[in-house]
Amino acid sequence: MGKRGIIDCDVHVYPKTMDELKRYMKEPWRDRLKPMGRGFYENPVHGSRLDAKPPGGGGPGTDPEFLREQLINEYGIDHAILLPRAFCNMHPDPDYATAIAAAYNDWLADTWLDKYNKDGVFKGSITIAHQDPAAAAKEIDRWAGHPHFVQVMTDSGARAPFGQRQYYPIYEACERGNFPFAIHPGTDGMGINAQPSPGYPTHYIEWHTCLSLSFQAHLVSFITEGVFERFPGFKVVMVEGGVSWLPALMWRLDAEYKGLRYEVPWLTKRPSEYLRDHVRLTSQPLERPDNDAHLLQVLEMMDAKHVLMFASDYPHWDFDSPTRAFPRLPEELYNRIFSDNARELYGL
Amino acid sequence: MGKRGIIDCDVHVYPKTMDELKRYMKEPWRDRLKPMGRGFYENPVHGSRLDAKPPGGGGPGTDPEFLREQLINEYGIDHAILLPRAFCNMHPDPDYATAIAAAYNDWLADTWLDKYNKDGVFKGSITIAHQDPAAAAKEIDRWAGHPHFVQVMTDSGARAPFGQRQYYPIYEACERGNFPFAIHPGTDGMGINAQPSPGYPTHYIEWHTCLSLSFQAHLVSFITEGVFERFPGFKVVMVEGGVSWLPALMWRLDAEYKGLRYEVPWLTKRPSEYLRDHVRLTSQPLERPDNDAHLLQVLEMMDAKHVLMFASDYPHWDFDSPTRAFPRLPEELYNRIFSDNARELYGL
Repeated sequence: MGKRGIIDCDVHVYPKTMDELKRYMKEPWRDRLKPMGRGFYENPVHGSRLDAKPPGGGGPGTDPEFLREQLINEYGIDHAILLPRAFCNMHPDPDYATAIAAAYNDWLADTWLDKYNKDGVFKGSITIAHQDPAAAAKEIDRWAGHPHFVQVMTDSGARAPFGQRQYYPIYEACERGNFPFAIHPGTDGMGINAQPSPGYPTHYIEWHTCLSLSFQAHLVSFITEGVFERFPGFKVVMVEGGVSWLPALMWRLDAEYKGLRYEVPWLTKRPSEYLRDHVRLTSQPLERPDNDAHLLQVLEMMDAKHVLMFASDYPHWDFDSPTRAFPRLPEELYNRIFSDNARELYGL
Repeated sequence: MGKRGIIDCDVHVYPKTMDELKRYMKEPWRDRLKPMGRGFYENPVHGSRLDAKPPGGGGPGTDPEFLREQLINEYGIDHAILLPRAFCNMHPDPDYATAIAAAYNDWLADTWLDKYNKDGVFKGSITIAHQDPAAAAKEIDRWAGHPHFVQVMTDSGARAPFGQRQYYPIYEACERGNFPFAIHPGTDGMGINAQPSPGYPTHYIEWHTCLSLSFQAHLVSFITEGVFERFPGFKVVMVEGGVSWLPALMWRLDAEYKGLRYEVPWLTKRPSEYLRDHVRLTSQPLERPDNDAHLLQVLEMMDAKHVLMFASDYPHWDFDSPTRAFPRLPEELYNRIFSDNARELYGL
């Protein structure tokens, strides 16, 4: 059967300047727009690959021609799922946050999805401001039927775990538009979002390592709250949240369920059984134990054949190369992870 | 060689009434003492084994004779490490919290360690209020040389991860007294402690499943902050925090270290290499995948032979029986987990 063309499920693109975004914003937001951030927990070495700066100027991930050369053509990628980084869910003002999200979507459509995309290589993510679920649902509806938006995305930082009821208008809209809901690391403890438990870390290495923990809490929340019973067509993609933790967490949750199913009577099966139908993880940053056999064992434990999708995280510093990130995989498993799981999820 | 006598590393004992504790407190604290808690995230079924109520009255874990009958004699346990549950680190007033900790220690010494303990089966944990590190260090020093206190303990809930510098007087005292520092789940997001990331959960099953996450953050903090370089004799015991997550977290942290060692130059080896000399995990609640082979693979990945110690969590609802919690283990591994690792750590 041979190796199939790769789907890269986490590629980051950026506006060249904030002015590119402002073009899509009305007053009073246009004048107020500034980059979201907090100035710490930044990579002290470098946040992006040093070779990812386009020769024609601009930052990494800003030049479609150069990105095609360095990622798409270099590795034979059939589709790249683009995830802009708005960070708008950290802001206390939901109107401002929603305006930023909409501007990112207009910009992504115009700059990448409609313009440099005759072959349809680029597929986009709809940015939302999850702190205003009704507005987020409207924004999702605005893009329904667009040929190149394939999912909704938000950051892992939040004021409450994503299984909780205030978010359900978003999930209804996802079901309506047939969009998976992707969560990407970021904004935990930023702005109005809950601080990381058990308190703020000290260094970037600590902060970055522990990003995977809030994904685990979100996943437990989705499952135990019964989101997948309430929205049978709803699917979650956990992007860049780590991989190998999945078996341990599901074993633990299944064991709790044995003693506590009384508390969550809406679940109709064991917690781990919701994964195959509703949850996908992307692979970067893939853990690489010294012993490759250990990773292969974990891939089996987690049913990677059905739940794992390759991602490179281009152009970031911890980019996973399609040819080097994984140990040698059996061809069938390779095709599932690098291609088929994403094709089935996104209808590619 | 045969099976060695068991060390049970997590057994809970309680005062029969608050008056038992008050006896050890002075004013103004004696009058103010009331149970710490918040009234939610409580097990909706039952928090302790239904059969653990002593026939002579009192709650589970309050009667030394009955505990000996139901746990020590029943399973052939050589030593039980006792962990009282004070929850004092949730309180904003460090003087009150410190007074509670001291009262628990006096009570534990008088009631269990000195009185019902001719054979030395019971070994105790020194409760501290970690929000006042200097006072906690004094409390630790007060018990140095006691024949039956074998470790210091606190809860996982905190205002900051345990690798941070404000806690170092505690670790100096632990080194001085040759006491491992044990962390037990509890008080995350209670009182003054950091709320759980990414926000408060809804149900007990969700809260209880996610208790393991703050252990992971504490462990990353201990290692990346260089606590084990600064205090070469310092040892950490992670009690009831889960087991199978360890390989995934260490692989992730080792990978981060490859790219970010510049930020933590005090580390002299890979993060995971600190485990064998400095960190122990207790086994309950042990994850039990459908396929026993998966658990045995994880035990190998995590070097369970050196880092895992059996615990039952008697008398709590999710008690792990010494005869049923684990799949069949090779005798050498059994002896390390059920006996030798704890004997070496605690000098038993």
